[in-house]
Amino acid sequence: MSVQKPSLPKGTRDFGPVQMAKRNFILDTIKDTFRLFGFQQLETPAMENLSTLTGKYGDEGDQLLFKILNSGDFLKNVESGDLEHGPGHVLPKVAEKGLRYDLTVPFARYVVMNRNEISFPFKRFQIQPVWRADRPQKGRYREFYQCDADVVGTDSLICELEILLMIKKVFGELGIEDYTIKINNRKILTGMAEAIGENGREAELCVAIDKLDKIGWEKVQEELVQRNFSAAAIQKLNPVVDMLDGNKGKLSSLKEFLSDSAVGMKGIQELEEVFALLSKYGSDEEKVEFDAVLARGLSYYTGAIFEVKVNNVSIGSVSGGGRYDNLTGVFGLDGVSGVGFSFGVDRIYDVMEELNLFPKQANEYTKVLITYFDQQGFEYGLQVLGELRSASISSELYPDLSKMKKQISYADKKDIPFVIVLGDNEISENKVSLKNLKTGKQEMMSVEAAVEFLKESF
Amino acid sequence: MSVQKPSLPKGTRDFGPVQMAKRNFILDTIKDTFRLFGFQQLETPAMENLSTLTGKYGDEGDQLLFKILNSGDFLKNVESGDLEHGPGHVLPKVAEKGLRYDLTVPFARYVVMNRNEISFPFKRFQIQPVWRADRPQKGRYREFYQCDADVVGTDSLICELEILLMIKKVFGELGIEDYTIKINNRKILTGMAEAIGENGREAELCVAIDKLDKIGWEKVQEELVQRNFSAAAIQKLNPVVDMLDGNKGKLSSLKEFLSDSAVGMKGIQELEEVFALLSKYGSDEEKVEFDAVLARGLSYYTGAIFEVKVNNVSIGSVSGGGRYDNLTGVFGLDGVSGVGFSFGVDRIYDVMEELNLFPKQANEYTKVLITYFDQQGFEYGLQVLGELRSASISSELYPDLSKMKKQISYADKKDIPFVIVLGDNEISENKVSLKNLKTGKQEMMSVEAAVEFLKESF
Repeated sequence: MSVQKPSLPKGTRDFGPVQMAKRNFILDTIKDTFRLFGFQQLETPAMENLSTLTGKYGDEGDQLLFKILNSGDFLKNVESGDLEHGPGHVLPKVAEKGLRYDLTVPFARYVVMNRNEISFPFKRFQIQPVWRADRPQKGRYREFYQCDADVVGTDSLICELEILLMIKKVFGELGIEDYTIKINNRKILTGMAEAIGENGREAELCVAIDKLDKIGWEKVQEELVQRNFSAAAIQKLNPVVDMLDGNKGKLSSLKEFLSDSAVGMKGIQELEEVFALLSKYGSDEEKVEFDAVLARGLSYYTGAIFEVKVNNVSIGSVSGGGRYDNLTGVFGLDGVSGVGFSFGVDRIYDVMEELNLFPKQANEYTKVLITYFDQQGFEYGLQVLGELRSASISSELYPDLSKMKKQISYADKKDIPFVIVLGDNEISENKVSLKNLKTGKQEMMSVEAAVEFLKESF
Repeated sequence: MSVQKPSLPKGTRDFGPVQMAKRNFILDTIKDTFRLFGFQQLETPAMENLSTLTGKYGDEGDQLLFKILNSGDFLKNVESGDLEHGPGHVLPKVAEKGLRYDLTVPFARYVVMNRNEISFPFKRFQIQPVWRADRPQKGRYREFYQCDADVVGTDSLICELEILLMIKKVFGELGIEDYTIKINNRKILTGMAEAIGENGREAELCVAIDKLDKIGWEKVQEELVQRNFSAAAIQKLNPVVDMLDGNKGKLSSLKEFLSDSAVGMKGIQELEEVFALLSKYGSDEEKVEFDAVLARGLSYYTGAIFEVKVNNVSIGSVSGGGRYDNLTGVFGLDGVSGVGFSFGVDRIYDVMEELNLFPKQANEYTKVLITYFDQQGFEYGLQVLGELRSASISSELYPDLSKMKKQISYADKKDIPFVIVLGDNEISENKVSLKNLKTGKQEMMSVEAAVEFLKESF
């Protein structure tokens, strides 16, 4: 076997202990919240049949799927004449499976395959990696985690309420304070296009209006002209641009504007109901901002649309979701509607790094290292170790007889906050010396006292 | 888009909410134990370069690797003349990456790539799926989780001790009582082959002797003859067969038998030291059984060998591990020795099902469902929901105005143990009726009393 310098495939990364501790802090917070709200976990295989994946993400998505070569003689269906027809022709002959591209399609597949066992409404969450053959760049990887919660099988707006509440809880517990939950309703967007006589053009409309803050109303008008919106339509948009501040103000301005659009008015009504539920639950509209031009997922969202932005950081949007009408139609099961939300774990991680929000001592670290000077100390240390662990204190005994400096350096590098030092005095008096590595303070005490002290320190 | 009936690739499976709750019970127990012992988590990408994976698992392993088709025009390096040279010739032209086959090779790669940042001894654990293109059969899947802990960078036998202690803790907390930790040492196996004058043939020797329990000494002798072991060698084995019961007895018999083999005696000494450490720590030899013919991983284990068997169940061996000398030599870094252990999560799951050991109410379930009869009840329920969740009680409000029977049936199917019923009396008196779905007992009380009661029920 030749020796080789190992490397990682581009666009992929390892998560070492420090990153894992931080990632787990985020993921545990999200999981606890999902469970508090009654969501249950699902895991699906990394590999799906290409027939399940293909055609669900548009042509570009199909290109970005990672395909898995058939096992065994993958060439057995390929003839030399096939090659000249190109990769699109050869692909189905050499690959039947691909890696999942998101968690929504596998979830839809699961719902269809298990529809007789599932009791609806079905509240599921799923936290797994997905793979996309995107060109890697800063902050964009070929393997990354998605973290989704969906409720399917009910049209109740309490689901929208719960998404708002879960976002508030998660961001609150992560310590992210300055963020905004933007909310809109697809029906309002549809209504806006109707109201200006440009039915069905809400996507283009939103792309242009979305730039209002950055480029101003005049430039937005120019862009709408370029996109062939009529002068009359642009004229009609004026009141939207001048909308009053605050959720209630915006809603009442929009009500006037949309009064002739039944679908638009339905959208407003749904949104008002969500705000009303928020108040009945005992929460408030703090952080929740109605954004009439928030547009995402327009090819599938039919009701509420959500997006979370963290303010004053380099990365903006960190999470998003919305309500859809038809999760599983493509697999032959109609009428499964629901609401979904996805926490952008990688982006939340980057935001927390930028804002320095990770707690100094995550749960994952060893709390105390036992150090010693000789074989006798090692053996006494073994006993102490047993007592610490019986008290559920994460602890280690340095494994080799080494210089004290080396043992302490191990604790430092592993971010272990305390060491127990076992010298002749400690052994003969059946005690331990407990040292706080941050303050340098060291004190001799009984093992029981050390256990008590350490239990109270975390 | 044509409608299709979705399916799963063969050898893969979904884990629905019930299975996930059970799996998480096992995995959380293992993770907590790893952390208590100072192990830190690592995650590596699903995809590795084929140059990293190939040649590490033997020819059969190479066949069983899932390979990923290059993105874009995967045929660009293939000419029509290539096809006649077969898949082995074409493979490197169409695939550069594969799915990880185990967690050890990615760990070795990680250690080599990060050797300057890692502080040794490095205690890492890793819990991730692996993929093998094996023929699927009962209990064997193409995607399954591995759950590994390794300490590298020390020869201290305290690592062996800690593996024994972790096994005892994990199986104890899972409620598995009747199991045996078999322990051996590779050096003893080497010494046994030496002692009978058949140097280097320990693998064959063990395969035959391992059947002693099942087929008896006479048949084992026949097999050894078939395998061309000399009559003198077989004769010399007699004392091993008659070894005394109990760890100490076996060790002293073996000491005599191996007295001329330096390596064999070193193996005995290591094993005795591990037993001594166990006693100094304050644990005992209960469940730990020295098995002089336990042989696994003979191509890489150089010291201790472990295997855990659950007694009186259809599946036997559920976990295993051992000490190795050279984790990373194949990647150009020599001298990294260590000990590793792998909990067989799928098999432990099956054993626990067979023995009916999963706790009835795992952590993951909703504790209480709020039910109601009308819009007023729904709105009052929203308030109650807020109070329950503030007290960290996992709770749900039924989302749609439905018949009580349908609401209760939802709770039943989701294994929710309590419901709160909100009728006119409850609303007017500002109380709730809490019903235990198992016993049928129902009682009206204040929201605060219900919160207290529910907090104490779990």
